[in-house]
This record gives sequence, structure tokens and C-alpha cells, in this order.
Amino acid sequence: MKVIIINGPNLNLLGIREPSIYGNESFDTYFVSLQQSFPQIELSFYQSNIEGLLIDKIHEYGFSCDVILLNAGGYTHTSVALSDAIAAISIPCIEIHISQPAAREEFRHKSLISSVCSGSISGFGLDSYRLALHSLIKED
Amino acid sequence: MKVIIINGPNLNLLGIREPSIYGNESFDTYFVSLQQSFPQIELSFYQSNIEGLLIDKIHEYGFSCDVILLNAGGYTHTSVALSDAIAAISIPCIEIHISQPAAREEFRHKSLISSVCSGSISGFGLDSYRLALHSLIKED
Amino acid sequence: MKVIIINGPNLNLLGIREPSIYGNESFDTYFVSLQQSFPQIELSFYQSNIEGLLIDKIHEYGFSCDVILLNAGGYTHTSVALSDAIAAISIPCIEIHISQPAAREEFRHKSLISSVCSGSISGFGLDSYRLALHSLIKED
Amino acid sequence: MKVIIINGPNLNLLGIREPSIYGNESFDTYFVSLQQSFPQIELSFYQSNIEGLLIDKIHEYGFSCDVILLNAGGYTHTSVALSDAIAAISIPCIEIHISQPAAREEFRHKSLISSVCSGSISGFGLDSYRLALHSLIKED
Amino acid sequence: MKVIIINGPNLNLLGIREPSIYGNESFDTYFVSLQQSFPQIELSFYQSNIEGLLIDKIHEYGFSCDVILLNAGGYTHTSVALSDAIAAISIPCIEIHISQPAAREEFRHKSLISSVCSGSISGFGLDSYRLALHSLIKED
Amino acid sequence: MKVIIINGPNLNLLGIREPSIYGNESFDTYFVSLQQSFPQIELSFYQSNIEGLLIDKIHEYGFSCDVILLNAGGYTHTSVALSDAIAAISIPCIEIHISQPAAREEFRHKSLISSVCSGSISGFGLDSYRLALHSLIKED
Amino acid sequence: MKVIIINGPNLNLLGIREPSIYGNESFDTYFVSLQQSFPQIELSFYQSNIEGLLIDKIHEYGFSCDVILLNAGGYTHTSVALSDAIAAISIPCIEIHISQPAAREEFRHKSLISSVCSGSISGFGLDSYRLALHSLIKED
Amino acid sequence: MKVIIINGPNLNLLGIREPSIYGNESFDTYFVSLQQSFPQIELSFYQSNIEGLLIDKIHEYGFSCDVILLNAGGYTHTSVALSDAIAAISIPCIEIHISQPAAREEFRHKSLISSVCSGSISGFGLDSYRLALHSLIKED
Amino acid sequence: MKVIIINGPNLNLLGIREPSIYGNESFDTYFVSLQQSFPQIELSFYQSNIEGLLIDKIHEYGFSCDVILLNAGGYTHTSVALSDAIAAISIPCIEIHISQPAAREEFRHKSLISSVCSGSISGFGLDSYRLALHSLIKED
Amino acid sequence: MKVIIINGPNLNLLGIREPSIYGNESFDTYFVSLQQSFPQIELSFYQSNIEGLLIDKIHEYGFSCDVILLNAGGYTHTSVALSDAIAAISIPCIEIHISQPAAREEFRHKSLISSVCSGSISGFGLDSYRLALHSLIKED
Amino acid sequence: MKVIIINGPNLNLLGIREPSIYGNESFDTYFVSLQQSFPQIELSFYQSNIEGLLIDKIHEYGFSCDVILLNAGGYTHTSVALSDAIAAISIPCIEIHISQPAAREEFRHKSLISSVCSGSISGFGLDSYRLALHSLIKED
Amino acid sequence: MKVIIINGPNLNLLGIREPSIYGNESFDTYFVSLQQSFPQIELSFYQSNIEGLLIDKIHEYGFSCDVILLNAGGYTHTSVALSDAIAAISIPCIEIHISQPAAREEFRHKSLISSVCSGSISGFGLDSYRLALHSLIKED
Repeated sequence: MKVIIINGPNLNLLGIREPSIYGNESFDTYFVSLQQSFPQIELSFYQSNIEGLLIDKIHEYGFSCDVILLNAGGYTHTSVALSDAIAAISIPCIEIHISQPAAREEFRHKSLISSVCSGSISGFGLDSYRLALHSLIKED
Repeated sequence: MKVIIINGPNLNLLGIREPSIYGNESFDTYFVSLQQSFPQIELSFYQSNIEGLLIDKIHEYGFSCDVILLNAGGYTHTSVALSDAIAAISIPCIEIHISQPAAREEFRHKSLISSVCSGSISGFGLDSYRLALHSLIKED
Repeated sequence: MKVIIINGPNLNLLGIREPSIYGNESFDTYFVSLQQSFPQIELSFYQSNIEGLLIDKIHEYGFSCDVILLNAGGYTHTSVALSDAIAAISIPCIEIHISQPAAREEFRHKSLISSVCSGSISGFGLDSYRLALHSLIKED
Repeated sequence: MKVIIINGPNLNLLGIREPSIYGNESFDTYFVSLQQSFPQIELSFYQSNIEGLLIDKIHEYGFSCDVILLNAGGYTHTSVALSDAIAAISIPCIEIHISQPAAREEFRHKSLISSVCSGSISGFGLDSYRLALHSLIKED
Repeated sequence: MKVIIINGPNLNLLGIREPSIYGNESFDTYFVSLQQSFPQIELSFYQSNIEGLLIDKIHEYGFSCDVILLNAGGYTHTSVALSDAIAAISIPCIEIHISQPAAREEFRHKSLISSVCSGSISGFGLDSYRLALHSLIKED
Repeated sequence: MKVIIINGPNLNLLGIREPSIYGNESFDTYFVSLQQSFPQIELSFYQSNIEGLLIDKIHEYGFSCDVILLNAGGYTHTSVALSDAIAAISIPCIEIHISQPAAREEFRHKSLISSVCSGSISGFGLDSYRLALHSLIKED
Repeated sequence: MKVIIINGPNLNLLGIREPSIYGNESFDTYFVSLQQSFPQIELSFYQSNIEGLLIDKIHEYGFSCDVILLNAGGYTHTSVALSDAIAAISIPCIEIHISQPAAREEFRHKSLISSVCSGSISGFGLDSYRLALHSLIKED
Repeated sequence: MKVIIINGPNLNLLGIREPSIYGNESFDTYFVSLQQSFPQIELSFYQSNIEGLLIDKIHEYGFSCDVILLNAGGYTHTSVALSDAIAAISIPCIEIHISQPAAREEFRHKSLISSVCSGSISGFGLDSYRLALHSLIKED
Repeated sequence: MKVIIINGPNLNLLGIREPSIYGNESFDTYFVSLQQSFPQIELSFYQSNIEGLLIDKIHEYGFSCDVILLNAGGYTHTSVALSDAIAAISIPCIEIHISQPAAREEFRHKSLISSVCSGSISGFGLDSYRLALHSLIKED
Repeated sequence: MKVIIINGPNLNLLGIREPSIYGNESFDTYFVSLQQSFPQIELSFYQSNIEGLLIDKIHEYGFSCDVILLNAGGYTHTSVALSDAIAAISIPCIEIHISQPAAREEFRHKSLISSVCSGSISGFGLDSYRLALHSLIKED
Repeated sequence: MKVIIINGPNLNLLGIREPSIYGNESFDTYFVSLQQSFPQIELSFYQSNIEGLLIDKIHEYGFSCDVILLNAGGYTHTSVALSDAIAAISIPCIEIHISQPAAREEFRHKSLISSVCSGSISGFGLDSYRLALHSLIKED
Repeated sequence: MKVIIINGPNLNLLGIREPSIYGNESFDTYFVSLQQSFPQIELSFYQSNIEGLLIDKIHEYGFSCDVILLNAGGYTHTSVALSDAIAAISIPCIEIHISQPAAREEFRHKSLISSVCSGSISGFGLDSYRLALHSLIKED
């Protein structure tokens, strides 16, 4: 099973930016631990601050891997184009948020991508990514 | 670790009601499998269609167990009282939805309880409950 | 043919409450006359002020009788949970109002249950119930 | 007792237009059956696609017959002038809809004429007219 | 003079819940002091988290005692049914809030029951109840 | 100087319809008295309930007489087409209302034609027409 | 008959301010011509930029003269207090505007005082005042 | 191939009305040139200012010709009835505008008929009609 | 303890203005009775129709007396400046209303000052002031 | 005559993405056929998923070629920056949509670029581009 | 060059009121330092809490000095009359705010005067005034 | 002191684009004069039309220089991601606009970045940048 994690704007600052909201672990460190926890998943990772490059990456993986985990950051609330990209691909996409957007500013309460994602996980810190991966593996 | 799952209105019909949206497994069957998957968690379960009894139960467990998993069903979108109950207790509450509310009617896009829940999981079918339990156990 | 009339909050006060709007006949008296007018219908009746008990009753009858006549009173305008209950059952539900909500306060102009009811009748006083029963019997 | 049925725009297409919503019986055929079912009522019928001619007809009958049954079609949602005409006459008017507008597009959820009609019936197919006539005859 | 205090959802937690907002005195203790301060008033007290039971109680006392003091908690902002119950009874109802809702979240700024209550008192802590009782006794 | 008074929907009922709002003088009687008061003005009059015929008449007179006095009745609040007709002609149009729309229902508070009329007069009963004519004659 | 004209904020600049909208005649000059045109009316005049002084003046004249002509300027769109003052007095008030507010910025489309004024006249330049005076005198 | 062009309110003034917006060619002249450009299409033309007659014409042609080109003028933004007529017929309808409504007043930004038209063309002056006809003929 | 009562616009008319809403006792008479009822409080009183003078008075007393009782009248719903003045002072302010604003026009449902007042009392007629004073004295 | 077609986000997937909405022809194939159909036009083509690169391209061509055909995809509904770019250039831009946005989700009903485009064409499939080119060539 | 600084409501409390927002320097002290920094500007200063006096002052200086620096305080968000005064004068006005209104309550996000001011400066503390003066002097 | 000026979309066209709004000086020329006016500031400059590259640059400089001057152009009104970037860095950002957005289209009245910028300057033409630099240097 191939899974790509796509992180949107400002998520390159994880561990630096507003640690009271986002924690102080960098995503690179966390990504390594994710790979170790889920050896059965072929996991890759991409980050960009550019909306259109995120769309490019969704197109690139959206017909060849199995699932996309997307944390669209601020584009979550404004990007019809990103939402269209998810609707256009043939594999499911899971929406991830580190914080709980509903507990923050009003403009973060509406996600334009939830309706085209198969599932959404928010508020568990970096663990939100881990839970999404758990959804992909069957347990006995 | 003690965890209670609280299910709100119409969730007693799981397996009967609108199977295209909610699947056709009953919650009782599913609950047994959850208990087996997480033997380290003392798991209990409550369902009611009555908003006030859900509040009663949140009060009852909100000071004595460790986490509440709440699927508030239709009250998610209308109940300030339920939201107040969650804010009033001393333990965290995780918001669960079986379907993806953002992909359904407009009135399901706003949750009154997200902002007082520590995390939210939606769209994974009954697996949404399982993922919430995964958030409670540390992995090596 | 089995039909149940379910009355919601404050309708127990019929004949007492605001007679200029709701008339001064009690529902019990009226119910007897309905039974006499429609001997071919097995008619039962339930009233509660508790939203969740109305949902319970809709579940109970929604898979075993033929039609529900529902006057949801004030819950008409606020209850997603009640609307979900109607959508979940396998028999049709007819929405009843004694007064004409559109001629009253703004917040009574929106019904959350109309869209899941097969038909709606309002403004005919208690006769609104009688007309709903007429819809169930074919005439020659 | 004299009653006139006034049908608004596009209702001349009944039996032709979108049969999945409006059924495939023409109104003329139905009108004959109504006359047979209610021999005690002197029933007449008028249809126009022109808002102003509907108003003319409401004026013409609104001071001389006993009740108007009005299916205003699309003008239901846009015509203040029609609403004013109903308010101006001295007899009651009953609002009729074949389908259930609340289950259709958002713009059909608001009726400008409900507040000036004594009663409203919707969602029973052509039977909506029959139920309105039942409201006019007392039963023993 | 007979007066009943009716407290709505979560008010059973007074003294426990969010003491920075609601203080840390339990209502039972406070109620005893109120009885002592107003010996000329026959004072009773009821609390429930269930909207419909609050309505039941309003019906029960609304035709037999002199005044109701209602702190509807979270139902203040969402319950048409409760507002209808107050409008239906024959005695006045006074709206009570411990905190100042206008200084809290936006959704607490609108009360559905103010318009049917004869008076409203908010922001004085538990003293809001005491002031309401003062309104009932004439001073020289 | 040639002036035409154009009256819209339901104004043919003047003297009959809701006399508490519109008075009980018919427009025909009033028109004669207007002609006598303003002998220096060549005054004509047209009424229709049909929006399109009002537009036709505005076109007919809008390039050949000096001023139009328009009481658009209920179309005031809904007709873009009427507003376009006024904008399209080469002479000024004065908006007339018998009652004070701002003191009536919310939907009467917005006029779609005010912005294309050179002036507006409302609330003076039938005298609103007389005042409009006074605006056309210079005094010494 | 005693009439007072009350002018609100910025109307002291008439003849100076934005002549393309308000003309270039000062109100003092115009007031003299009004007095000459209506010798049968005892006409006085007041202007202030201070909302509260306008209210004071409405109180002062509102119980002793016959009619107030009020051009509230910018306060038209924002002052509940002014609207309350008009509702509180025992004589009628006529709303005057020199320009046509509906043809200007959106925030000028709503008048808070129209609903408590007996009539409104706008768009006739300074002649709006003259027309208001015509409404007070009967013609033969 | 049979095509009818239906023009709505005020379009009879083309060449006369606001030439800076609509140009100064009359539609009759333009229609002749269209016929010459598309000899393979049997082209007819209808104009009315009356909403209901436009509906009548849509019904008349909507089951017998191949395509309707509709410029609904001001009714574009207000007529549910017209939109219903287009939805009711069995042939496609193309929405035409001479000007670019989105560049004009706010109330012209919403079209009630776009969603039931197969295509929309606006802003090309009278050429908007020509382009619509081009859509009907295949090119090699 | 020093307390000042500040009354806003139109409250000088108490006993004169709309007695069905505000009663027919003048505030001067009432003020004397208040002084007699609360001899332990040094009570003063100020009224103005001018928003800015109310602000001046709040500044003057807001750093030197103990509590302000403010009935801001119509400015309650429109004055950010008044709200700022209350936030700027160092003593608490209690919001008073004689009538129940929530039971009147829509624009009276929003108070701009509630959020900066420590408490609010409305609907008890002039007694609203008396209750506010009761909040200041401890009882045994 | 030089014309450039600029396609926005996700339009690189044409022929792959949601063929029920967008058809299954790739744009490259279609572009060749367009060049053949309009040999008199020097036609070029650009696509990017990056909003800023679309702006760059509009700047590059907006002062040197004759017309831009822009299908802005999802940016149509969200990009003020793109709209500003079109307003800034000296040549006209034509807005193109393959599907009919008004018949899809609510958020697609508002275009931020229509008001700065000289014309708009939507709903004709890929033919929308062809029609736009027809607007550029005069016919005899 | 003559410049007047006009400060609106509550700005007399500078140095006293909410120092965490507005700082603790009084405006008088600051004004002296401004005069010293800009000896080439003839600087005067006025403050009032009364909206109408601010308008009076704008009129007085608006035709005789060179620039007005206006910090309208709370009236920024509510006063159409003040905005009209600025539009009426013949010299430019610069809008000043000490704090950053956009970072505070929602009702401070809309300024009614920005659109008639030539420039706006906010968020620099008292330095906002200094920057405005810098805009008036050319540098080499 | 190190300062970077970051300019967003379309600002590369300064001196070319809509000179009536933005003036006809290019930013390069202006930048040189700024450097000369503020020799004590190490000034750099960046422009891009790509939202994500602006974010990259904010990240790059946001932890190493002293202040950012940001003119976000059209992204001001739509970019949550840009606003997040500013909130994430450790140095202050000043919002710059050449024109006065409040005097232009409605959609330019809301800035998503003001609330995270320490100050905002608009409407002074290119001088808006100069004023921002003045805010950084103390004067004697």
C-alpha cells in the first residue's frame, strides 16, 4: 500500500511556528517515527506553500498511489481549486488538521475540502496523521 | 484507562437506518469487536435519543472516567446545552461521526460541539470510533 | 391500515393554551371524533414534550404501522434529530400544523421536517388532522 | 357553496412536464373527477401563466364565491402582488402545492402567500386539491 | 405568594462547573439562603437537563403558582418549544442568568425566551435569583 | 404639460381593498378631482395588474409625455423589468405610494424602482398623487 | 397652523456642500421663499449637527405645534434615538430628503425613521419641503 | 433545424434604450442579418414584456422546435416561473445577454435561469445571439 | 456608597411618552422614592439626549463613584462610543431597561453595551432601577 | 490576430477528470482542431495550476496579443488577484467555462472575473472556446 | 501649512483608559512633542465626545486649513453623519487609529469614514499621528 | 536595521497598470529613492505574483530581519495562508496599500491580514511605504 502525505502552507514551520497551537516537534522527525510505526505502508511526503504545486502533486499521485493524507493548512478554507483536484482523482483523500479549527477563528470553521474527502481527523496534534494511517490497516 | 462511548439520537437504528449512509452493522456487534481490539481499555457504552439524558451521562462520567467518545448525531448541529455539558466536565471528549457531515445537507456543516472537543473524527464509518481509541494509546 | 398521531411539545395544552390561536377543543375529545369518522383506520395517539421520546415513538411505529401524522410543535423549527428519525424509518410521515406558521413569527417560517415528510397540512385548526386522514383513503 | 381553483404558471403542462415530480395525469381529467367527488360544491377552474391575469381572477371571484384554491406555481416564491391580491379580497384562500416545495430547491422553501392564506396543503400530488375541498365540508 | 425556580441544563453542576464563570457555591446551599431571606414567599425548586421535563414543569406550575423564575441555561438560545410553553401559561415568567451571556460567545447573544418573559436579569451571579424575588415584593 | 398616472396591481380595488390602509375613495373619483385641481396639466390615467402591460405603457408614454407618476404596488418590491423600463425612457418618473411601506412588512421596505425615479412620495394617502403634481408646477 | 422644519447634520452647508447633489441655494434663502408661499402657515426653522439637540427640539415642539418636517440627514440611517423621539410625540412628522437616497450608497437605502413618520418625500431638491407643506393645506 | 429567439422585457427598445449599454441597432435589422448568416437554420423571433406570454411561447415551441435562444431581460433575475417553464420543456434553451450583467448592478449578478439552460453567452452585444447559433452547427 | 443613575435619550419624557410601554410616572417622582428606599446609598441622577454628554458624565463619575446605573435608551442599540466609555472606566456599570427590548422591534434585540456591563435588568418597569440597587446591598 | 488560451487549475486533466461533467476529449487534441478551424487566428495555449503563473502569463500577453480566452477553473470563484490582473491589462479577456457553473454547487455561482471580462461563455463543453473565437471574426 | 487634529469620543482618556491597548501617555503631552517635531506645520487640536461638535469642527476647518487628521474613535464604525461631513468639505482628511481595529472586536472591522478619507493609518500607537504628518511634508 | 518590502500580485505592473488608481511611477525607481531617504535602514525588495512564494519569502525573512512591509495586493482579501504566515513569524509586519481599498469595490473592504499586522497604512500612493519606514525610526 502506497500513501503520500501532502502538507500545505506554513506546515514547513512545524516545531517553529506558534508552538502553543502546533507543538514543537518538526514534521521531518515525526515522519520518520510514522514510517517506523507503519512498516507495511510505503509512505512518502511532500510539502509546499504553493497552492498550484499541491494540486500538481495531487494529480501526480492521485492516479497511482492508494490514499492521500492532506493537511491543506490555510488553503482548507479558501481553495476551490484544491477541492476540485481532490474530486478529480480516482483515489480517496483524508483531511488532516493538527489543531481543532472549530476552536479557533470563525474563518477556520468552514472547510472547502471536507465534502470531497472520504474522512477528516483534527485536533490530535501530529497524531492526527497516525490515526489516518490506522484507518488504512485492518485489525484482527 | 476507562472510556465511555455515548451515542445520540437515531444511532440505535444503526444497521437498520439508511444503510447507504451508515452501513448495516449494528452498534452492539461492533462494540464487542472494539472491546476485543482494545483489551487495555475499560470500555462502556450508552445510547439515548433524549438530549437531557445524554447530558446526564456526560455529567456522570465526566468527572470519573478518562475520555468520552461522543457521537451526538443530530444534536451536533443544534444543542448548546450539550456543548455546555462538555465544557463543564474535567475530562476530554472526542467528537465522532460515522458519515462525513460536510458532504451532506448544509445544516450538517456546522457542529456546535467541535470547539469544546479535543479532537474530531468523521467519515470512516464505524471505524471512526476505532481511530479515536487509537489516539488514546501510545505506540512504540 | 394503522395510523399513529404523534403530537409534540405543548400540544397537551390544546383547549387551554392560547385559544385564539389553537382553538378551545381538547385533543382527547377531538381524537374520539376522528376515530368515529374513520372507522376503517386503526388510529392511535401519543403526545410528549420530550424530543427524544418523540423520536423513540417514531422508531417504534416507523417500521410497523402505515403512516405517521406528526405535529412536532416547536421542535418543527429546531430539531435535526427529529428530522433524522423521520428520514430513517420506512413509512411515510405527514406534517401537521393547527395554525398557519407562516402567518406567525419569523422563526416559525422554516420547518426542518417538511423536506422529509411526504406531505404537509397547516392552518385548518384541528381539521388539519382530519384532512391528513382523508389523504389515506381512496374515494370513488 | 362556490369554489374556484386557480392554477398558476406551467400548471397547464400537468401530465406533460417533469412527470417524476408532478405525475402524469392532466388537470382537466382530474378536475372532472373532483366535480364528481364533490357534487355539493359548485366548482370552477382557471389557469394562466400571466401573474396579472391571476390577480384579475382573484379580484373577480374574491368578492362573489366562497373559497379560492390557489396553486400559484413559481409565483408562490416571488409575487408580492399576488399576495396583496389575496389579502385584499373578502373570502379565504387555500394554498395548494402538488409536490413538497421544502424538499426541492432552496428558493422554493419560502412562500410569499402562505401568510395570507387560511391554510396550506402540499405534497399529496393532485390529491392536495381534493383534501382542500374536504376542509370545506363538515362531516358527521 | 408561591414561586418556583426552574433551572435548566448543566445548572446541577453549579459549584463544580467552570467556577470562574458560575462561582463555586452549589445551588442547594444558595436555595436555603434564599428561603431564609424571603420568608413571605413559598419557594420551591426544580432542575432538569431534559428540555421536555422543563416544559412539563412549566405546565404544571404555570396555572397554579404566581411566578416562575426560569434559568433555561443552554436551551435559552435554541428552544422554541420552551418559549412556547412560557407563552402558553397564565402566570408571568422571569428570565434569569448567572453570567452575562452578551459578554460570552456570539451564540449566547440571542435569547428565544426573553420576548415571552415579563423581565430578565443577568450577570449578578446567583444574586440574579435574589433580585428577581425582590421584584415580587412591594417596599414601603 | 402632459402627465400620465400609471397604477399597478390591486390598485383597481382602491376604495374596496383594506380601507384601513388605503382609504375608501375610489381612484376614479379622485382622478376627476385631480384634473380639476390642476387644469394646466393634461392628465391621463392607466391601471393594470399585468407587469408587462405596465412596461408597455411606460414605453408608450416614456418618449412622448413629460412626466410619469407611477404607483407600482406590489411590483415595487420585485420587478427588475419595471425598473429597467423606467431607466430606458427619456422622461422622469415619480414614485408614488398611498401608504407608508416602511411602516408595513419587511419585504415592503426595499423598492427596486426608487433608484431610477427622480423623486418618491409616500404615506399621504391619495394626496401623494396631488403632491407629485405640485412638484411639476412652479409657484411665485 | 404651526409647522417647524428641523434639519439635521451637514444641512447647514446647503449651497456649499456637494452642489451636484444638494444644489447651490442656501436653506436660509429658501426658507424665506417658503414663508412667502405659505402665508397661512406659521413656519419656524431649526438646524443642528448634534443628534441629541434634534431630539430636544422634537420634544419641545412635538406637543405644541401641528406638524414637524424633519430632514434628519445622516442620522436617518443610524439613529434609533431619533426614531424613538418621533414615536414619543403626539403630532405627525414628515420625512424629507433633498436627494434620492435610494440612488446613492447602499447604507442610505434604509431609513430608521420612515416607519414612525406619517409620510416621506425625497428627490425633489429643496422642493421636497414645499411639497410637504402642500400636504398640510386642503385645496378646493 | 428550427430555432426560436425569445426576447423579454424592454428588449423591444433595442436601438432606442440606453445605447451606451445596449448599442443602437434595432433587433429587427439584426434579425434579418442573422437569417442571412445562418440559412441552414429556420429562425423565428418573438418578443414580449409580459412574463406569462414568454412562458406561453416557451411551452408552444418547447416541444416542437430544436433550440430556444432566450434573452429574458430583467426577468432573468426574478422569475422562478420562467425557470420552471424552461425545466419543463423537452428541448435545450440557451441563455443570452447583450451586456455583461456581472459588470452591472449587484441584483443582476444572479440569474435564476442559468441552471436550467444548457449554455449561457453574455457580453458580446448583439453578437451573443450569433455565437449561440454557431453552437448549433458543426464545423469541419 | 455612591451611585449615579444615568438616563439616555427620550427618558426625560417618562410619564408622558407612550405610557402603555413606559408607564405614567415621571422619573423625578420615582427618584425621590428610590432615595427614600435606599438611605444607605448616596444616589444622584443625570439625564441627557446627547450621546456625547452621556459619555462625559460616565467619564466624570467612572473614576470617583462606586457604580453606574445606565439606561442608555435608543443608544443601547447603536453606540459603540458609549460602550467604549463604559469599558474605559474603572467601576462597574449596570444596564437598565424599563421595558423588555426583546419583546419589541428587531433592532432593539441587540445591545452594544451588555457585554461591557457587569449586569443587566430589563422589563420590570421603573422597578428595574430598584432591583439594580438591591444588587448593591448585602442582605443577612 | 493573436489570441492566447489560458487554462487554470485541473484543466490539464481534461479527458481524464470527471468525464460526465467535462467530457473525455483532451485539450491538446481539441486545440489542434481549433487551430485548423480558425487558420486566420494565430492561436497559442498555456495551462498552469498555479494562480500566480496564470497572472504572469496574463501580464505577458496582456499588452502584446489581441485577446485572451481564460478558463480560470476553480480560481474563477476565489481569486481577486486574477481579476486584478485582467483589469490591469490593455486587451479584452473572454471568460470560458466548459460546464455550466450555475447548475453546480452554490460556491460556483459567483464569478470574481466576469465583471472585468468583456464577455462570458459557459456550458457548451469544449465548444465554449470555439464560440469565443467566432466572436473575434466578422462574418459577411 | 495648517493642520488640525480632531479626536473623537473617549480619546480624552488617553493615558488613563485601557493602557494595554492605548498606551499611558496623555495626548496633551504627545501634542507638544508633535509640534516640536514638525515646526513647519501650524498644528492645532480639538477633542469632543459629542458627534455633532466634531461635525461642527470639521465644517469650521474644512474650508480654511490644509488637512484634517481625524481619529473618530467609536464613531468610526457608526456615524454616517461624520462621513458626510468629511465628504462635504474641500480639504483632505486622514483617518487615524492608535490601535489596530481589525485585531479587535468584529464591529470595529468596518469603518464608515475610510472611503471618504484620502488615507488611513492605524496600529502605530500615538505614532500614527506622527506618520500622518510625515505624509504632508516632501523629503529630498 | 534590516527591512524587506514584499509586494504581491500585479504590483510588478506599477507605473503601467491603471495609473489613475496606482500612479505612473514604477516601483524600481521609487525603491531607489526610498533607499536614499533612509540610509540608516538596510532595505531589500521582493515581488511575486505567486501566493506561495510570498509565503516562502515571509518565512525566509521573518526570523532574520527586523520588519516586513507587505503589500499583499489582491491576496489581502482572500489569503488565509498568507495571514497564517505572518502570524507564524517572530517579527512585526506592516500592511501597506497604495490606494484606499475602502473607497473601491466591496470585496476590497475586508483585509484578512490586518489583524495579524502590527500596523496598516493605505491611501498615500507610493508614499505609504515611506510612512511605514518613518514608523521605524525614532525622532528627537
